[in-house]
Amino acid sequence: MTATTLDIIAIGNAIVDVISRADDAFITSEGIDKGSMRLVDTDTAEGLYSRMGPGIEASGGSAANTVAGIAALGGKCGFIGQVADDQLGRVFTHDIRSLGVQFDTPARSDEPPTARCLILVTPDAQRTMNTFLGASQFLPADALDPELIASAAILYLEGYLWDPEEPRAAMRKAIDIARGAGRKVAFTLSDAFCISRHRGDFQALIDGGLLDILFANEGEILSLTETNDFDAAVDQVSAKVPLLVVTRSERGAIAVKDGQRYAVPAEPIDRIVDTTGAGDLFAAGFLAGQAQGRSVTDSLTMGAIAAAEVISHYGARPETDLKALVENRLA
Amino acid sequence: MTATTLDIIAIGNAIVDVISRADDAFITSEGIDKGSMRLVDTDTAEGLYSRMGPGIEASGGSAANTVAGIAALGGKCGFIGQVADDQLGRVFTHDIRSLGVQFDTPARSDEPPTARCLILVTPDAQRTMNTFLGASQFLPADALDPELIASAAILYLEGYLWDPEEPRAAMRKAIDIARGAGRKVAFTLSDAFCISRHRGDFQALIDGGLLDILFANEGEILSLTETNDFDAAVDQVSAKVPLLVVTRSERGAIAVKDGQRYAVPAEPIDRIVDTTGAGDLFAAGFLAGQAQGRSVTDSLTMGAIAAAEVISHYGARPETDLKALVENRLA
Repeated sequence: MTATTLDIIAIGNAIVDVISRADDAFITSEGIDKGSMRLVDTDTAEGLYSRMGPGIEASGGSAANTVAGIAALGGKCGFIGQVADDQLGRVFTHDIRSLGVQFDTPARSDEPPTARCLILVTPDAQRTMNTFLGASQFLPADALDPELIASAAILYLEGYLWDPEEPRAAMRKAIDIARGAGRKVAFTLSDAFCISRHRGDFQALIDGGLLDILFANEGEILSLTETNDFDAAVDQVSAKVPLLVVTRSERGAIAVKDGQRYAVPAEPIDRIVDTTGAGDLFAAGFLAGQAQGRSVTDSLTMGAIAAAEVISHYGARPETDLKALVENRLA
Repeated sequence: MTATTLDIIAIGNAIVDVISRADDAFITSEGIDKGSMRLVDTDTAEGLYSRMGPGIEASGGSAANTVAGIAALGGKCGFIGQVADDQLGRVFTHDIRSLGVQFDTPARSDEPPTARCLILVTPDAQRTMNTFLGASQFLPADALDPELIASAAILYLEGYLWDPEEPRAAMRKAIDIARGAGRKVAFTLSDAFCISRHRGDFQALIDGGLLDILFANEGEILSLTETNDFDAAVDQVSAKVPLLVVTRSERGAIAVKDGQRYAVPAEPIDRIVDTTGAGDLFAAGFLAGQAQGRSVTDSLTMGAIAAAEVISHYGARPETDLKALVENRLA
């Protein structure tokens, strides 16, 4: 087993978010499940865009947000994802590279355009996501560089990317490469609706012992195990995954490692503005902590710090110096 | 003189802002005048973009920000400006229309792309702007709809748009149309460097009695009059402009109307994040107040409220309900 040069290599949707404030009545009138992520086609995306309010655009994508956070915390990261050769693709590429993340997936010159996610943020700071996958769904398995994947200590995958066929095949291939090289595989369950579409596959990954680290929130782990009993769900999954991390919104987060349970409270925050990216940045803080050799509890605290920062403003990537926040808190 | 259907019709650069945090050392290393606006060509824009940090994209443009603010305050507005037929052009178009602003200037199908402004925000919340004018500089005079201009009580023009030749000609034509229809003409001086490039023209507009309302900040009115004496500058300009509004950052703002001077303090604010758009939104609040028939002092206060909101977050357009802020404050 050769030495690693990256802490994390992530595969995920390469998305630019379009973030807009909306009231609950608008969400209802559009017939959207508040708080969820739904996939939309071109017509639905354009119709919704024409009716929603003004937006701000910011690079997003769940795993991409996570590596952005890890990089901001000093970790060495790579990202694999598909953009189109267009203005939003250049925005995504600039933003992730400017953080020092290695991102070499060639832009795709054909239609469709770069993925975008129309995010409606309600006054309660909840985000409801409408994702037009665009170019992102065409990430081909042959875009994976086996050496790059083998060079990272952890391969990180997002459940959202299980929806489109080509990236799903690419992720399966990446898991093989990583495991073959003796690396760890981390996975985030992403979304309860996404799990309902792919429960069998996700359960098979877990039962097959293919996942070393699993991230979920409460709703997701309940959806995965099809139970209403949180502790039972955690016991069931943690029996099969060496390191399970479950976020619980304002109640903090827990981790279960080798049968031992750890918990941290949520970090205090003045005002929650937009919960987009909370889970992504929690994973970022946790994985950065692990990469720095910190304890499970300190890694959880780093997750809580990064999540608290990202929900204090619009957008799913950090706006303030995460490293300084962690240094102040864990000094 | 027919009745007006719009409060304001504005002509300005149609720009998407790319907002990024930067430290003072970066500004220095790029050889940029901190706090200013400079025009950059494609190569300079791309070079700077490749070196700067991750950004968020948000519709901008000085006069466009102003009409966005007026619309948010309930005013009826139109906007004239040139975008290209590309993704950023569609972002600009969506954002301004979604506020109820009438915007019908056809997108331009040729190169260059839609204008963007690379905005570097330093830790002191100052913004330094690097504008790639792109399509915006090709607004043709024949894109003006004389009926639309004549339908608005006030024609609002930004000094920045005096730089490129075609829009300058368009603005001169628009002034003629507005004055011919018995409407008022409002102008913002925009930037001290912009004034140094066009002092003769701006002074001629003032001396010729073509401007009914003039907006400036302290640095701009000093630059215009080439003096260091603020009161002398105000006296000199207000002698020739019926309504002069001068913003003074943390010292609030003044207006001089018919020889009478009015002043308001700055609105208190928890934390200044990004001063981009402060002047634009001050103008928005003031003009919205005037359109509502409010007193000069209350109009100044509305300007101060709108400016305080926009500097409390990244981006040059309001993120919170300006109307509610004004109602609470001026109840």
